[in-house]
Amino acid sequence: MNNRRIVLAARPTGEAGLEHFRLETLETPPLADGQVLVRNHWLSLDPYMRMRMNAAKNYAAPVEVGEVMVGGTAGEIVQSRHADFAIGETVVCQGGWQECSVIDANVKGAIRKVDIARVPLAAHLGAVGMPGVTAWIGLDTIIEPKAGETVLVDAASGAVGGVVGQLAKERGCRTVGIAGGAAKCAYVRGELGFDACIDYHGKGFDALAAELDAAAPNGVDGLFENVGGLILDVVLSRMNAFGRIALCGMIAGYDGAPMPIRSPRVLLTQRLRLQGFIVTDHMPLWPAALKALGEGVAAGRIRYRETIAPGLQSAPEAFLGLLKGRNFGKQLVKLR
Amino acid sequence: MNNRRIVLAARPTGEAGLEHFRLETLETPPLADGQVLVRNHWLSLDPYMRMRMNAAKNYAAPVEVGEVMVGGTAGEIVQSRHADFAIGETVVCQGGWQECSVIDANVKGAIRKVDIARVPLAAHLGAVGMPGVTAWIGLDTIIEPKAGETVLVDAASGAVGGVVGQLAKERGCRTVGIAGGAAKCAYVRGELGFDACIDYHGKGFDALAAELDAAAPNGVDGLFENVGGLILDVVLSRMNAFGRIALCGMIAGYDGAPMPIRSPRVLLTQRLRLQGFIVTDHMPLWPAALKALGEGVAAGRIRYRETIAPGLQSAPEAFLGLLKGRNFGKQLVKLR
Repeated sequence: MNNRRIVLAARPTGEAGLEHFRLETLETPPLADGQVLVRNHWLSLDPYMRMRMNAAKNYAAPVEVGEVMVGGTAGEIVQSRHADFAIGETVVCQGGWQECSVIDANVKGAIRKVDIARVPLAAHLGAVGMPGVTAWIGLDTIIEPKAGETVLVDAASGAVGGVVGQLAKERGCRTVGIAGGAAKCAYVRGELGFDACIDYHGKGFDALAAELDAAAPNGVDGLFENVGGLILDVVLSRMNAFGRIALCGMIAGYDGAPMPIRSPRVLLTQRLRLQGFIVTDHMPLWPAALKALGEGVAAGRIRYRETIAPGLQSAPEAFLGLLKGRNFGKQLVKLR
Repeated sequence: MNNRRIVLAARPTGEAGLEHFRLETLETPPLADGQVLVRNHWLSLDPYMRMRMNAAKNYAAPVEVGEVMVGGTAGEIVQSRHADFAIGETVVCQGGWQECSVIDANVKGAIRKVDIARVPLAAHLGAVGMPGVTAWIGLDTIIEPKAGETVLVDAASGAVGGVVGQLAKERGCRTVGIAGGAAKCAYVRGELGFDACIDYHGKGFDALAAELDAAAPNGVDGLFENVGGLILDVVLSRMNAFGRIALCGMIAGYDGAPMPIRSPRVLLTQRLRLQGFIVTDHMPLWPAALKALGEGVAAGRIRYRETIAPGLQSAPEAFLGLLKGRNFGKQLVKLR
């Protein structure tokens, strides 16, 4: 079977661009015992992929030049040499940026079946997938919000941020989002039900701080941080004593821009707890999180929005747009 | 009874100086019911006092201009209108920078009796007092070191840092200190038993990082942070995955110098947990900590060193020296 895939063509030294990706067509190899072939319908694009393009070791090994870009996919089994997987079953796997993926189904966590009766297949890459679980774990195991507290999340209209706010609201919190542009902010307030949302576009520290004072008059108890840089500095300055920070992403610095925390003293004076985390470090929590998120989506209590790029060849441009905040909600590539 | 005291004469805008303190002599007032009069023998000087000189609210209210400077003292009861305290008993209290202190003994935590049979009175302001408890709480409740891990502490020859390293060694860790100057480093290694100590004087990021790589070849699992600034940046860059940071002080910035964390991304990529803490938030832990520390000092397992300034009038200069690292070990003022 012919397979189109996108590989890392070169490592970016600063900002990533289209020249760092290359589309290739190969024949899929025959399956070995225990493997399955997945025809991917959806590719998930996520900010963490930018870090994997760098040579520096992060929490996971970098993608090597010439290797297929990493990424979660959702699709169907089209060939199987594993007893637990039958042709036609719907699955989510680490399929990478390609149309067909050979997956070793014996590797723990490599592939899981998903039920599309009540939750659409693509949502298993979003609110009921890795981004939703990320929101759930950061909120419930790090921020541990109490009713009446104020929880802030930036990139609030995104795949992770939107779930954070809706879960925090369910837990009785005042929810404040930060997002880029009036349309996203209107969506965060109106559709996702946040109590307030601040548009960060074109604003410096003082303007953002003034808006935050209005949006969070009692200060911020829990911060779910996806962005870093200026936004983190502003929110830090408004954290209450014993506040908790779930450090999930720092997209502001993924292209190599300096991103200092300018006034870390507040971490001490307010006795803040900051915890960096990666969702794949917490595999034992996934089943409970996926169950709760699936029920929330099926019941309409957890809402989300998707931006869909058509065809594998559109993935690089969609990914670069994601890093700039040009997507609206979960960024997907439709492969079939 | 005549009482000499030192008050905050003016708030510093940048670096603190002698002009911000004023020595006064007043008559001690008559005691109200429930109060005791303490003749202070020792005044403890500690970095946190610098923050209390600023108008900005921190974890505690600022000292007002004209008010006596805050500080822990150790001394003896010379008058008492409280049934639990008798003349001649030795106590530790928040006596402030003065020779005699009127203490309301009914206020929880305002005063406690100390046993000087096996632990000298002054040590109840150091290794068996607030600094020692600070070390104990930061190490055992935040860093939670496991045998075989590497624990690093800066200001390692100081009242807190010295105890951190000795406790971490007891718990089976490799202990690395950072201190200013060859004499302090020799003391940290030879007398306190650290495995290694790095002299930070005159070194930039790269030189410090190279020394740290040699001193902590397996990286750093636990950081007890007293300093902030460049030293924090260097150690952060060498933290292992799932490392813990007990943020106890940021003395590098207490005079108002900018002190950014230049590369906070490591907090995310290494999934670090950073917790700011103040020892007085953890009063329920004090009795167990004081008991363990007292036994350690009495048995000679926990060692310490003191720098003693003679007479109340020497307190301001000694305090300014402490902020510059001119003290060696616990900085005390001998009042009697």
